[in-house]
Amino acid sequence: MRYQVRQQRLLELLRRHQASGLLVTSLVNIRYLCGFTGSSGVLACRLDHGRRQLALFTDGRYRLQAREEVTGARIVIEKRSALEMAAEWVTGSGLTPIAIEAQHLSVAERDLVLKHRRHPNSRLKSTVGLIEQLRLVKDDQEMAAIRSAVNLGASLFDTALNTIRPGVAEVRVAAEMEHAARESGAEGMSFETIVAAGPRSALPHGHASTKPIPGRGFVVLDFGVILAGYCSDMTRTVHVGRPTTEEREMYEAVREAQGAGVDAVRAGVTAGEVDFAARSVLRRNRLDRFFTHSTGHGVGLEIHEPPRLARREAEVLQPGMVVTIEPGVYVPGKGGVRIEDMVVVRENGCEVLTPGTKELIEL
Amino acid sequence: MRYQVRQQRLLELLRRHQASGLLVTSLVNIRYLCGFTGSSGVLACRLDHGRRQLALFTDGRYRLQAREEVTGARIVIEKRSALEMAAEWVTGSGLTPIAIEAQHLSVAERDLVLKHRRHPNSRLKSTVGLIEQLRLVKDDQEMAAIRSAVNLGASLFDTALNTIRPGVAEVRVAAEMEHAARESGAEGMSFETIVAAGPRSALPHGHASTKPIPGRGFVVLDFGVILAGYCSDMTRTVHVGRPTTEEREMYEAVREAQGAGVDAVRAGVTAGEVDFAARSVLRRNRLDRFFTHSTGHGVGLEIHEPPRLARREAEVLQPGMVVTIEPGVYVPGKGGVRIEDMVVVRENGCEVLTPGTKELIEL
Repeated sequence: MRYQVRQQRLLELLRRHQASGLLVTSLVNIRYLCGFTGSSGVLACRLDHGRRQLALFTDGRYRLQAREEVTGARIVIEKRSALEMAAEWVTGSGLTPIAIEAQHLSVAERDLVLKHRRHPNSRLKSTVGLIEQLRLVKDDQEMAAIRSAVNLGASLFDTALNTIRPGVAEVRVAAEMEHAARESGAEGMSFETIVAAGPRSALPHGHASTKPIPGRGFVVLDFGVILAGYCSDMTRTVHVGRPTTEEREMYEAVREAQGAGVDAVRAGVTAGEVDFAARSVLRRNRLDRFFTHSTGHGVGLEIHEPPRLARREAEVLQPGMVVTIEPGVYVPGKGGVRIEDMVVVRENGCEVLTPGTKELIEL
Repeated sequence: MRYQVRQQRLLELLRRHQASGLLVTSLVNIRYLCGFTGSSGVLACRLDHGRRQLALFTDGRYRLQAREEVTGARIVIEKRSALEMAAEWVTGSGLTPIAIEAQHLSVAERDLVLKHRRHPNSRLKSTVGLIEQLRLVKDDQEMAAIRSAVNLGASLFDTALNTIRPGVAEVRVAAEMEHAARESGAEGMSFETIVAAGPRSALPHGHASTKPIPGRGFVVLDFGVILAGYCSDMTRTVHVGRPTTEEREMYEAVREAQGAGVDAVRAGVTAGEVDFAARSVLRRNRLDRFFTHSTGHGVGLEIHEPPRLARREAEVLQPGMVVTIEPGVYVPGKGGVRIEDMVVVRENGCEVLTPGTKELIEL
């Protein structure tokens, strides 16, 4: 991955924020900036008379791993807390202010940092979404990783189709999908697999339960894998038995809304406009009050990352952003439908990354 | 679960801390206190003229779920951020100070809480480990849940034994174990399964990779499940092919250290004393410098929770605490061994929860 480029862009951001240093405490952001994938560590950056210095602080468990993975940063391993060491190092020459990731530093951790300042003059400066901003637009290597994750993820839909039948527990379907994912080399699932059948399909987040799939009704499948650190996210809804006319209309309305969302994606539009496009189709079908969540979200190293495609979101889409388009309709007591693809924003539209049909499949 | 008892104990803690209210932002602590298992929400507690009031703030996705799960708290669902609503409610009558969970509230979230105070006089008071302290000692219902998780988890060792052979990818072994866990009703794994074979066994946290299991050497298996919210944690090390005398001695030293750790556990001793007992055996075998982590940790709703069984930890063990005992030895370039059981602390010793042999199994 292009760690040097990312570190250079970080530097420019720090200058723009007039910060002399930064403590990176989000593990995902640490991975993005220097490649370290351990579960514990702090990356510190200081700008000393224009010279950039990066250091990764972690513990003995990650000695070998850090050496293999990290690009562009010294590795510091001691028996002390990584955050204490990082706080001392980053304030070492009396630099101020030091930017912190306000969303990824707890109040207790901030107190620890303040306690371990080398200079009482060193101030902390809260920042929000600094590195997330760099992560918004995916580079070509990231896109390759995302495509691989999306394709592996999509292959699990076939596994699901082969497993779903009345009487089979939802969790059994999830187990088969997760097994197939692992066999294909996924590090894991990007979130707890949703298999919600019959009346449970009306739960937007119906994690696979031990309940059996009923003799008829919708089954919502929402699933994704992590491959080489990158996430996939996909939803399909199938129907066990023949759908009623009402069910078919509901499905087609969601499908049309999803298509309208996809069609609205292009560089220059706001996230809110995409949400509006999908929501309008459901409004026309008098189903919008059953669409209780937002239309989509960014995906990358995290399953949920900016931008949010929600009502009135002003964020402007840029080429290379990767987002989901996933409207849904949930009618309590009846059932629900959601259809979700991942797309990458282009200058004049978008490319749908998720393969596979969106026709209603009857099982 | 005994939510009323827990809420009563929380109340006493707040009185002792002279706090008039509390914002609970750790989802695990929220679950412990009122039963809510959703992935987003804030529990607020206020003591208004001695009257205890609890309210859970969450969003529309969790309307049905919250109603089914929550005991002893009002449920408040609006379109606004749960934390904003909770901040306004808990400061509603000008109460002060309001305790926060300093480890579970980010700097950005604290700023949001301060912004949404109803009364400018309301102060926030940082607390650390308030509810974790309540969670230290498990009650009978929790013990039943933990036993179920431990037994399900332990059954996966057989799955591993049936899968491990030279040439099989580590990740394949993990996949079979995880599949068996799901089939048996586990919600998921309590952490990323470790299958570390041959030289990789020298990595204390060698997550299952796509590398094949070599023709000979140790295989470290560290795995656990989540069942009804409670975690299990277990490590066994097996050997593919005949171990050398040196390898056998290394294994036996770790086994002896693990036994010494278990034997040291009883109410009244410190966590550090247990660590010392295990570490001393390895020191006698001149292997202590290869034991690079601590001896164990608490387990419950989280895979890692207090107490820490580490060098010089002064925390005194109490009956009903559940901890792991897991010394290990990792010799770079050669291989590693770790053996881990979960035990529950008793007045005069401990009960080992994890079933199964700790003899060296050759495959």
